[in-house]
Amino acid sequence: MANLREISVSAALNLLSAFAFLVAFAILRLQPINDRVYFPKWYRRGIRNSPRRSGVCVTRFVNLDWRTYIKFLNWMPAALRMPELELIDHAGLDSVVYIRIYLLGLKVIGPLAVLAFLVLVPVNWTGETLEGVKNLAYNDIDKLSISNVPDGSKSSEELLHLPEYCYTVKFSFCTKYLFRFSVMRFQFILFRFWVHIVMSYVFALWTFYVLYVEYKEVAAMRLRYLASENRRPDQFTVLVRNVPPDPDETVSEHIEHFFRVNHPDSYLTHQTGFGGVVGTKVDAIDYYSSEIQKLSEAEALEREKVLSDPKAIVLAAFVSFKSRWAAAVCAQTQFSHNPTIWLTEWAPEPRDVYWRNLAIPYFDLTIRRLLMAIALFFLIFFFMIPIAFVQSLANIEGIEKVFPFLTPLIETKSVRSFIQGFLPGIVLKIFLILLPTILMMMSKVEGFSSRSSLDRRSAGKYHLFLLVNVFLGSIITGTAFQQLKTFLHQPPTEIPKTVGESIPMKATFFITYIMVDGWAGIAAEILRLVPLVIFHLKNMFLVKTEQDREEAMDPGCLNFATYEPKIQLYFLLGLVYSAVTPVLLPFVIIFFAFSYVVFRHQVINVYDQRYESGGSFWPDVHRRLLIGLLISQLLLMGLLSTKNIEKSTIALLPLPVLTIWFHVYCKGRFQSAFVRFSLQDAMTKDTLERATEPNLNLRAYLKDAYVHPVFKGRSHFESPLLVPDEENNTLVLTRRSS
Amino acid sequence: MANLREISVSAALNLLSAFAFLVAFAILRLQPINDRVYFPKWYRRGIRNSPRRSGVCVTRFVNLDWRTYIKFLNWMPAALRMPELELIDHAGLDSVVYIRIYLLGLKVIGPLAVLAFLVLVPVNWTGETLEGVKNLAYNDIDKLSISNVPDGSKSSEELLHLPEYCYTVKFSFCTKYLFRFSVMRFQFILFRFWVHIVMSYVFALWTFYVLYVEYKEVAAMRLRYLASENRRPDQFTVLVRNVPPDPDETVSEHIEHFFRVNHPDSYLTHQTGFGGVVGTKVDAIDYYSSEIQKLSEAEALEREKVLSDPKAIVLAAFVSFKSRWAAAVCAQTQFSHNPTIWLTEWAPEPRDVYWRNLAIPYFDLTIRRLLMAIALFFLIFFFMIPIAFVQSLANIEGIEKVFPFLTPLIETKSVRSFIQGFLPGIVLKIFLILLPTILMMMSKVEGFSSRSSLDRRSAGKYHLFLLVNVFLGSIITGTAFQQLKTFLHQPPTEIPKTVGESIPMKATFFITYIMVDGWAGIAAEILRLVPLVIFHLKNMFLVKTEQDREEAMDPGCLNFATYEPKIQLYFLLGLVYSAVTPVLLPFVIIFFAFSYVVFRHQVINVYDQRYESGGSFWPDVHRRLLIGLLISQLLLMGLLSTKNIEKSTIALLPLPVLTIWFHVYCKGRFQSAFVRFSLQDAMTKDTLERATEPNLNLRAYLKDAYVHPVFKGRSHFESPLLVPDEENNTLVLTRRSS
Repeated sequence: MANLREISVSAALNLLSAFAFLVAFAILRLQPINDRVYFPKWYRRGIRNSPRRSGVCVTRFVNLDWRTYIKFLNWMPAALRMPELELIDHAGLDSVVYIRIYLLGLKVIGPLAVLAFLVLVPVNWTGETLEGVKNLAYNDIDKLSISNVPDGSKSSEELLHLPEYCYTVKFSFCTKYLFRFSVMRFQFILFRFWVHIVMSYVFALWTFYVLYVEYKEVAAMRLRYLASENRRPDQFTVLVRNVPPDPDETVSEHIEHFFRVNHPDSYLTHQTGFGGVVGTKVDAIDYYSSEIQKLSEAEALEREKVLSDPKAIVLAAFVSFKSRWAAAVCAQTQFSHNPTIWLTEWAPEPRDVYWRNLAIPYFDLTIRRLLMAIALFFLIFFFMIPIAFVQSLANIEGIEKVFPFLTPLIETKSVRSFIQGFLPGIVLKIFLILLPTILMMMSKVEGFSSRSSLDRRSAGKYHLFLLVNVFLGSIITGTAFQQLKTFLHQPPTEIPKTVGESIPMKATFFITYIMVDGWAGIAAEILRLVPLVIFHLKNMFLVKTEQDREEAMDPGCLNFATYEPKIQLYFLLGLVYSAVTPVLLPFVIIFFAFSYVVFRHQVINVYDQRYESGGSFWPDVHRRLLIGLLISQLLLMGLLSTKNIEKSTIALLPLPVLTIWFHVYCKGRFQSAFVRFSLQDAMTKDTLERATEPNLNLRAYLKDAYVHPVFKGRSHFESPLLVPDEENNTLVLTRRSS
Repeated sequence: MANLREISVSAALNLLSAFAFLVAFAILRLQPINDRVYFPKWYRRGIRNSPRRSGVCVTRFVNLDWRTYIKFLNWMPAALRMPELELIDHAGLDSVVYIRIYLLGLKVIGPLAVLAFLVLVPVNWTGETLEGVKNLAYNDIDKLSISNVPDGSKSSEELLHLPEYCYTVKFSFCTKYLFRFSVMRFQFILFRFWVHIVMSYVFALWTFYVLYVEYKEVAAMRLRYLASENRRPDQFTVLVRNVPPDPDETVSEHIEHFFRVNHPDSYLTHQTGFGGVVGTKVDAIDYYSSEIQKLSEAEALEREKVLSDPKAIVLAAFVSFKSRWAAAVCAQTQFSHNPTIWLTEWAPEPRDVYWRNLAIPYFDLTIRRLLMAIALFFLIFFFMIPIAFVQSLANIEGIEKVFPFLTPLIETKSVRSFIQGFLPGIVLKIFLILLPTILMMMSKVEGFSSRSSLDRRSAGKYHLFLLVNVFLGSIITGTAFQQLKTFLHQPPTEIPKTVGESIPMKATFFITYIMVDGWAGIAAEILRLVPLVIFHLKNMFLVKTEQDREEAMDPGCLNFATYEPKIQLYFLLGLVYSAVTPVLLPFVIIFFAFSYVVFRHQVINVYDQRYESGGSFWPDVHRRLLIGLLISQLLLMGLLSTKNIEKSTIALLPLPVLTIWFHVYCKGRFQSAFVRFSLQDAMTKDTLERATEPNLNLRAYLKDAYVHPVFKGRSHFESPLLVPDEENNTLVLTRRSS
């Protein structure tokens, strides 16, 4: 275990490396040649153009103005300057709500840290356990943690034996004094634990308060956003799935009939989804069309075929209504008494639709979810088995067998030791890099119909993985499977004890983890090294036209499914250590503050969201935060019960009950704002629109809103060679109009 | 432990006593004087009248026709004869669906018993464990149970040591033979366990099949019932709760306004609920009015006051619509973006409304449910503490203190020993009799707004209580709290082992339990001893008019909250013992068959349901049955793992996963039929009605549908003295018209 000085050195080193990243970023972003890497969003919006062709050639690539380098941290205040409303307008509500998670981290952990340093650190510091136990390796950090508070049972035992002792020395004045002192000391030890218990209540109540206010605010933001939003196709549209086949009618006729009967006054039109049957073909088309020119004619033919083939139509449709009110009614009600057919849900916005999953029958869905749940269980607890297998294959002998010509090189001593040392680690690293993709594939198999729900679902899976394999895995040695086995053979009350007991000892490890994974990760995030290299490579070898350059530019997007579970891990660490080792908290706070600035910058300048869900992921964030709080409470109970203060566990028992109740309450109070669109709001918006635009032709407006991207004339899936010149021009024009 | 003969004797005795009950019932029911006790339903429906006054006086009270006594079991076929459709018409869907639970018991457990006796009993019987262990007390029943199958580890150990043995005797022909025999024996033992494992899969699949078919059938019955039902106020009406107060408008105006805006085309009218503020007063009125005549004027005044006082109006309303379609839409959609106000739900039928709970704010509701959940936990695990306290008070000394004049009597030796022996038992018995009432009070505090949901909720609580305190409590000795403590300090895998291991040993106990509690309970049910005595007492002392006699007659109703959890206990026993000790199954089957006939008779002749919910309790029945199945599977896994067959636990692992998946699937597939009314069905019914009755005045029809019983002119809460004579006559007339 490292002591305080070692941690300080490590922190300084990590801060330095993060600083180096920032300097590199500051220099690189000022070079015009990198402009499209660091400000792609402005290009996408047409506000920023390629550097002007006029002027000296060098300045087109390198920034020679020395003054700009001095203010190299300028981007930070710049990132913070844009007001929230403008940011919503600029980047969408999803991004704004997402960066609020970091702010929430500051709001929750900040006051916790202040309180902990004012109250708990002094209480821990004046405990004497660790000084007394000279033979145990302890360090300064442990002295600030709960480990330094003496064990209740030992002190009480001491107290019990004292009268005997006093008796033997025949109650001199000295022993009386000693006795009184010991009683006081024992009371003080008890007092110390009560301070911890009271503080954990204060922490929980503060977290509840902040979470409640935040949930309320996010819900209000979402409602304001939905209310202020311009007319959008998804406001009038409902996704209908599992349309039962009809022997006499085509699917389209059947749907039209059904809705004309059941929503006689408000049904407007519908579009059936394409893609279920021809899903893979369509994708193949995308792929080839962007690669090989000669296939484009075949593609056109295929497209023709798909459009005319009735079998290619899947049993799902986007049904549009004359008013938002009617759409809201249709999305929230059940049509058939068989709840597995005519399933309606609020349509995701057109970009958000995940076309392939529209037409999965109900029974298949339940089977798929069962299978994926089982697969997730095995992935979390047994992922080391295939990795170990690949690692056993990817040894020197294996490589020599497959690539015999490499043998002389490999047999070199230095190369050999390099391979032996790094290969297993690299295999694991590759798996961890691939993991989010694997989880996303699993979510896709589960059959969710929008990209936003896929992201949310994958995030849930990743959160579980991190919880078991990073958090628990770091505290308890051994693979997740071994943990599982231990846990199954331990009493349920022992689990929080086992984990809780080792929590204080792992504080230094997690501090290092926060610095290496958290701080450095964020600094790497802003540097965008991979997109930078790829952009320049593409620019050098592939880019020929202006549109090529446009496509070489990869703004990326907020990867909710990967980032959010990681934030949850830092929340968990903050909450767990707030009552145990408060020294860890400042590191978490720096992470949140730094991340907040960086992601605000990225959201403003870089990321281009693929869809807009109106912050619909907040209930998940809230729930997972409460799971973290619950875990921290259970672990504290476990830890305190190993300190032999019997009453402490009982005194803490109401905390998890309160937490669960708070979850239930918030869910009932706010969740529906993220799932449903209320009739009152719909009616208000409808009335307003009817008053301002009485002659609106909604049918024309909705005509091509929900059409699979391949069938859209102007989609960027389109091979540019197929598009007539004038269309291509308008395409560029619309993109460029400021 | 009793052996097979003892069990047979006990069974014979119990059958005899049940038979005695039946004979008593057969005799009593034939006496005209008891007619109103055993056929109250027909009186209520006006089809049966009091015995004719003509004829000899004796025959008015006693049946002298000896021929009727011979056919004393005639009521059984008579009870079975009424076809189901007629029964629905006669007794309502709730009753019909309820007695189907017993039939379901036969369908599930019957084939299980046949299979178990064909396959498992021979396999168990030919095991030799218990014959080998001579010093252990075992009995014939254990020989038929899984206990008789030898332990896997011992046999395999034997097998491992055999080669050594063979080596020492130098491989004679004899040892070779012995070796081969032992291998065969070991394989046979393994085979026996595999038979149990395969059979438990067969049992689970059969249960799934029957449950699925039953759920489907009940859902279909409910849908047919709703479709064929006559026009009823609740079809057009939605219960709106948590109406936000408005500073400018009265509640009534506010509601009218709100719905005119948000449902402009379909809103018809509304009735606000009375009772929140004046709830207790109203009840007081009921009480006094039926007791003291002189208060009736004060009552009239009070009623006047309530009707004119705006503060007495609670923030809840019954809002009616012009069509069922609009009501269905309103019940299923969310109005405000704040999901805690303007809460809408499908209105319960007028009789089903629980008026007092209509106006509880959302926050109060969540707090109430939290408190009741905690209270339920303590009730289940700590109920013995207050009982022990009362028992400690209710001893001889306590009685002597409170009633000193009883001292001489109590000090008599025989009385003293009687009190000492019986008093503690009586205190416990009184608690158990009061328990359903306590649970119902708790459900009322939770704030459910209909009697049917109160019943369902109480049943859930009672089910938990029986599960912990009767099922687990009988298997593991010690109070529920001690069990809880043991379980908390045991690994989760140990719990099924501990419980599972003692399961076979408790078979005889549960067989006796089924006979005493089940068989005798049902026989007592049909005899209706308490209503019989009370009716005759009332008849003797209180009854003066014909209406008094009408009111003295207490038909009672199916007490779902108490009966259903008890059925679940028998299901649980059947499922748990099906793979362990199949001998128990016939006893369960007899219980189900006997109950089916008895309750069919009661439903036809006696019970008068207080409300009709259309079988909406079925999802609960289904879920609890699956919980029973799950428990049986976990216990079998625990039991087999103590038999040291390692693979058996793994082989059984898919079973609980399958069970949970089946639950999720059925829930998605069927549950909504019990919660929502589909738009398609509503539209069909509306269209039909519009065609057949184009001039229907719905407003007049709905005018007084949802009015608190006290404010209704013709309610039986009404003190008869207040009602003018002619109204009283029509009242009797409507009741009597066949």
